[in-house]
Amino acid sequence: MRPSGRAPDEMRAITIETGFTKHAEGSCLVSFGDTRVLCTASVERNVPPWMRGKGEGWVTGEYSMLPRATHTRGSREAARGKQSGRTQEIQRLIGRSLRSVVDLRKLGERQITLDCDVIQADGGTRTASISGAWVALKLAVNGLIASGDLKVDPIEKQVAAISCGIYKGTPVLDLDYDEDSNADADANFVLISGGHIAEVQATAEGATYDEEGLLRLLRLARIGCDGIFAAQLDAVK
Amino acid sequence: MRPSGRAPDEMRAITIETGFTKHAEGSCLVSFGDTRVLCTASVERNVPPWMRGKGEGWVTGEYSMLPRATHTRGSREAARGKQSGRTQEIQRLIGRSLRSVVDLRKLGERQITLDCDVIQADGGTRTASISGAWVALKLAVNGLIASGDLKVDPIEKQVAAISCGIYKGTPVLDLDYDEDSNADADANFVLISGGHIAEVQATAEGATYDEEGLLRLLRLARIGCDGIFAAQLDAVK
Amino acid sequence: MRPSGRAPDEMRAITIETGFTKHAEGSCLVSFGDTRVLCTASVERNVPPWMRGKGEGWVTGEYSMLPRATHTRGSREAARGKQSGRTQEIQRLIGRSLRSVVDLRKLGERQITLDCDVIQADGGTRTASISGAWVALKLAVNGLIASGDLKVDPIEKQVAAISCGIYKGTPVLDLDYDEDSNADADANFVLISGGHIAEVQATAEGATYDEEGLLRLLRLARIGCDGIFAAQLDAVK
Amino acid sequence: MRPSGRAPDEMRAITIETGFTKHAEGSCLVSFGDTRVLCTASVERNVPPWMRGKGEGWVTGEYSMLPRATHTRGSREAARGKQSGRTQEIQRLIGRSLRSVVDLRKLGERQITLDCDVIQADGGTRTASISGAWVALKLAVNGLIASGDLKVDPIEKQVAAISCGIYKGTPVLDLDYDEDSNADADANFVLISGGHIAEVQATAEGATYDEEGLLRLLRLARIGCDGIFAAQLDAVK
Amino acid sequence: MRPSGRAPDEMRAITIETGFTKHAEGSCLVSFGDTRVLCTASVERNVPPWMRGKGEGWVTGEYSMLPRATHTRGSREAARGKQSGRTQEIQRLIGRSLRSVVDLRKLGERQITLDCDVIQADGGTRTASISGAWVALKLAVNGLIASGDLKVDPIEKQVAAISCGIYKGTPVLDLDYDEDSNADADANFVLISGGHIAEVQATAEGATYDEEGLLRLLRLARIGCDGIFAAQLDAVK
Amino acid sequence: MRPSGRAPDEMRAITIETGFTKHAEGSCLVSFGDTRVLCTASVERNVPPWMRGKGEGWVTGEYSMLPRATHTRGSREAARGKQSGRTQEIQRLIGRSLRSVVDLRKLGERQITLDCDVIQADGGTRTASISGAWVALKLAVNGLIASGDLKVDPIEKQVAAISCGIYKGTPVLDLDYDEDSNADADANFVLISGGHIAEVQATAEGATYDEEGLLRLLRLARIGCDGIFAAQLDAVK
Repeated sequence: MRPSGRAPDEMRAITIETGFTKHAEGSCLVSFGDTRVLCTASVERNVPPWMRGKGEGWVTGEYSMLPRATHTRGSREAARGKQSGRTQEIQRLIGRSLRSVVDLRKLGERQITLDCDVIQADGGTRTASISGAWVALKLAVNGLIASGDLKVDPIEKQVAAISCGIYKGTPVLDLDYDEDSNADADANFVLISGGHIAEVQATAEGATYDEEGLLRLLRLARIGCDGIFAAQLDAVK
Repeated sequence: MRPSGRAPDEMRAITIETGFTKHAEGSCLVSFGDTRVLCTASVERNVPPWMRGKGEGWVTGEYSMLPRATHTRGSREAARGKQSGRTQEIQRLIGRSLRSVVDLRKLGERQITLDCDVIQADGGTRTASISGAWVALKLAVNGLIASGDLKVDPIEKQVAAISCGIYKGTPVLDLDYDEDSNADADANFVLISGGHIAEVQATAEGATYDEEGLLRLLRLARIGCDGIFAAQLDAVK
Repeated sequence: MRPSGRAPDEMRAITIETGFTKHAEGSCLVSFGDTRVLCTASVERNVPPWMRGKGEGWVTGEYSMLPRATHTRGSREAARGKQSGRTQEIQRLIGRSLRSVVDLRKLGERQITLDCDVIQADGGTRTASISGAWVALKLAVNGLIASGDLKVDPIEKQVAAISCGIYKGTPVLDLDYDEDSNADADANFVLISGGHIAEVQATAEGATYDEEGLLRLLRLARIGCDGIFAAQLDAVK
Repeated sequence: MRPSGRAPDEMRAITIETGFTKHAEGSCLVSFGDTRVLCTASVERNVPPWMRGKGEGWVTGEYSMLPRATHTRGSREAARGKQSGRTQEIQRLIGRSLRSVVDLRKLGERQITLDCDVIQADGGTRTASISGAWVALKLAVNGLIASGDLKVDPIEKQVAAISCGIYKGTPVLDLDYDEDSNADADANFVLISGGHIAEVQATAEGATYDEEGLLRLLRLARIGCDGIFAAQLDAVK
Repeated sequence: MRPSGRAPDEMRAITIETGFTKHAEGSCLVSFGDTRVLCTASVERNVPPWMRGKGEGWVTGEYSMLPRATHTRGSREAARGKQSGRTQEIQRLIGRSLRSVVDLRKLGERQITLDCDVIQADGGTRTASISGAWVALKLAVNGLIASGDLKVDPIEKQVAAISCGIYKGTPVLDLDYDEDSNADADANFVLISGGHIAEVQATAEGATYDEEGLLRLLRLARIGCDGIFAAQLDAVK
Repeated sequence: MRPSGRAPDEMRAITIETGFTKHAEGSCLVSFGDTRVLCTASVERNVPPWMRGKGEGWVTGEYSMLPRATHTRGSREAARGKQSGRTQEIQRLIGRSLRSVVDLRKLGERQITLDCDVIQADGGTRTASISGAWVALKLAVNGLIASGDLKVDPIEKQVAAISCGIYKGTPVLDLDYDEDSNADADANFVLISGGHIAEVQATAEGATYDEEGLLRLLRLARIGCDGIFAAQLDAVK
């Protein structure tokens, strides 16, 4: 039995509140149960130095946890003077995931930065960030198309992410904090609408997988991402 | 005439949404018009090294602007590896302001950290932070009293802050971004319920004050803070 | 009674030794009693990136306390790898104060940096820095005029600063360290020759002001700054 | 056809030279073709602060690329003043991988640090690091057992890692640099002797996987790791 | 002919103004011609962690150049966030040099830090720092003896330093900036009263030495240090 | 008697294994007994900003000790976020030493970086680094000549370095770790083929030199460097 009383393949309630901030070209507050992440997309006309003059764009992500997003207060990375390895790992993942569905040539020489700031954490902040960042990105691109800055849509698919894990021997979908801290194994899947896999990060500290276990988690992830894809489409309509 | 159409002594709409996050001992999302700041109060049993063993507590503040809280995206301080002078100046001000209404001996050997994270900026983020931080602090202290951890309330007064400035020759209250970037002079007042002044920061880059000008701004600030005091009391009820 | 035996409106002895170092375009060692600050003005032909091509100049300040300027040795900021919030706050204040009396367009596309290094501290280091920095700036500008590099003087007024506070219930002028560490309230005023106020920073940690108290401190500050203005004119003659 | 002329399921030559440095409690120079990594295991009697007094040990990893391990010289992280996100991601992976086969309670309150320094890079440096680190760890533990410091062996299994990818449409094993930079997809598998999976990191930037593709790569990884397990056993004999 | 008109074995005028700052346990402003360094000795009751409980003391040095000590303004190390290699090299030299004449066991478990801050630079700042630091150290130790904190003097000898170089083919003593920037070779000698050598740093970038050249410079250094030893004794009397 | 059983003027076995890594333009693994340093020379077409457009080249060095090159593990400088003063001092010495034998005008506008990474330390790592760096540099330059990129050889001489010291009263050559940590005095000599001295760093912490002692160490250094010069020539043949 899951602490939350959910069925093994049951997601938490997803809500996506678009236009949460007024300055960003695209923004949303995405919630997976009590996990809430503010995602903004910022469009800038300059690309990183190593991309200049190639006529292509760039999509990148940044991630941060507000100090009191968690049960006990964490120290502020800006005050410590550096980002943790965990933060850097997550923001690299966000960038790769979004780029997997964007045709950078169609984007033109502009950069879109997806800032994912965790307001409240209850497990699954990196996957909520990716799922929400796609919405912010789509809204920003829609704005560029509406203003005539872009002629064709560089976003080719949807991308969403979800965590799965083995909790007391049972594969379960969308772990919350209570489950996550007691799970035997934990995997994050980044899936693309239409059926492909963009990224798998299956980590076992304390337990291990076999093929069958990995596939069962992947099957759960498909169920979860289908729900997210629908919520994303609703949000950007 | 103010760009916003407000009268010179008219505040923007204030809303204070308490309990905005679930983990913090006290929290609120405070809005002054389009300026929105998430304030959380975190109670910890340890005090800074130089305070240990004195039986007193400490109240401190941290401040940050989300990268896309502003018109154009600012770089993330955690990524740059240091906090700007402006950030440090503001968070020192937040700490001093809150400490001016707390009896640290009554707080006992515990630290309360007030994190003020600006979700959206439209002028007056530091004053909104102070005004909201008091609410978060009060909620946290109420919790300590309710649980029996504290016998007496260490908070002796309310503290609130507001900016005033001279816009096209007229002293005006509660500047928004449009006014702030065109004001001849700008002052932040931190006032204490009952009539005293905790802090004045009157800065003139381009223009200057005389006594009369300073007093007129202070009179406006009193009007503004009276409104904030009322909103704070409503919020913590 | 003040520990120093001074009357409430009595300044410490001010001395300004110009030309204290030979390389700087302008320099002085300013003393307010035992507080001694070396102020140098350095003229450079480049301005910060965001000012380039506008035909305007820039005036900025940097501040540091030598490790053993104080009663007990403080750690060296260069060794710690960052400047404290206090240092940054002060150097921002120095820059703003000096800019309030300079017409940056008349300065032309050059930057003048005012380095204020505290050799010995006995209270009032930031105000001594501002008062001395004006002398260093004036000497540097005089040099530019003498060499024909500048046709008109971009310095429009004098600027000076002084601290005041409430010590054992009495408003007093120009606090030394003993008074400062026991004062109920502390205010720094930056005044401009001719009567205007450039900046007020009135901070009360432990005590608070009302209008009357603030105005009494301001009146003391006017007395103090009149004395400093005279000393500055003497020095640059 | 692979640039190297290898069959799709053919590994590069593996050599493991143990005792490469004399000070470390365990060390080896591991080579996968032209990729060469120096792995050392250092035993220390202190554990991280958050582990103290629990009677358990800790195993952690650090990773670095010598500046000229690569085709063009990379800047030295110590000179830049921070480790890249990539470095931190890899060293976290090394630590997790090794911990997945160690019973930390049996290790007792000591820390073993696995330093993996890449002498020469030709693809697969992180997987070579993990595979070599196990050897260094085993040698260090053998020493602790020989000296009587440990009564039971805390290492429960072998762990090895290998990269696989899809190169010109074909799944291939153990990518070298030429293949890696032209692969459509890239996955790193960390496998445990006996058949379980410790970690999967399958990343597709530009291409994507389906289940079948993922399983085919996993099957290749099993072939590769079986070879590595044998080489590890040879090395520690 | 030397630019300064000095004879090859002629020092610049040395002045040592003791008690230049009032807080330090020992202090002096040392001048070698236009090179002026403020040296302070700070006595603290704690020693570095690796020295604790051994009953011995420690003597260490820190060095800094004020930004406008030089012809053109250098950036402030505290603002850049790190000390240059040159600064670190010099402060390590200062510490070693002073320790070479102190019996650390006689000092007891206390640390004396010698801060050498260059007010004005005209060549030879590191050697002036060492020569002045000895005076500051001696004054601080005299104070400890006077107060009864120390029974025996831990300072066993004097230490002084001077630069020599080969200028247009001629070995010369005590290079000023003009000579230093045009010298073919440059050497710093740290000598101990009584005739021994504590340290030699002879560097040739562009030119090279032979034994004879090195010995001639050393002979000049002896002449110079004899003068400094006398000036030191005068100063501490 | 030396712990190693060597005669006072006896070097440890020197081996220089060229081509140790395949990417660098020049590389070798140099061993002085158990001290082993990997030296690579990297040729780049850009020079530091302050050298641009002068038609000259630059030669520079970087140095690092692998964490477990030593008896006990040292913390990784990249993880600590800064290079130690010792590291910076050594890499500045490496650069100066190599530049003393290179005609930078003949090198043309290119930079050669000599990375010296200590694989295993047993005393004398800085001198081994310099001696090996010359070999790496020579190999890189030979390659530039072979490819026609350089018409004339900018390397004018050989440079080598060795440490000497006074061990139990006897001057000895090429100190290993056991001797170094018990020596009364320690000196590093950088000598140039043909008889000149590029650099002397004679440091006495605890003991001191006189002229005679310094000259005796220098004589030993000449013996040692003659051996290194021969080994270098063998290596680059």
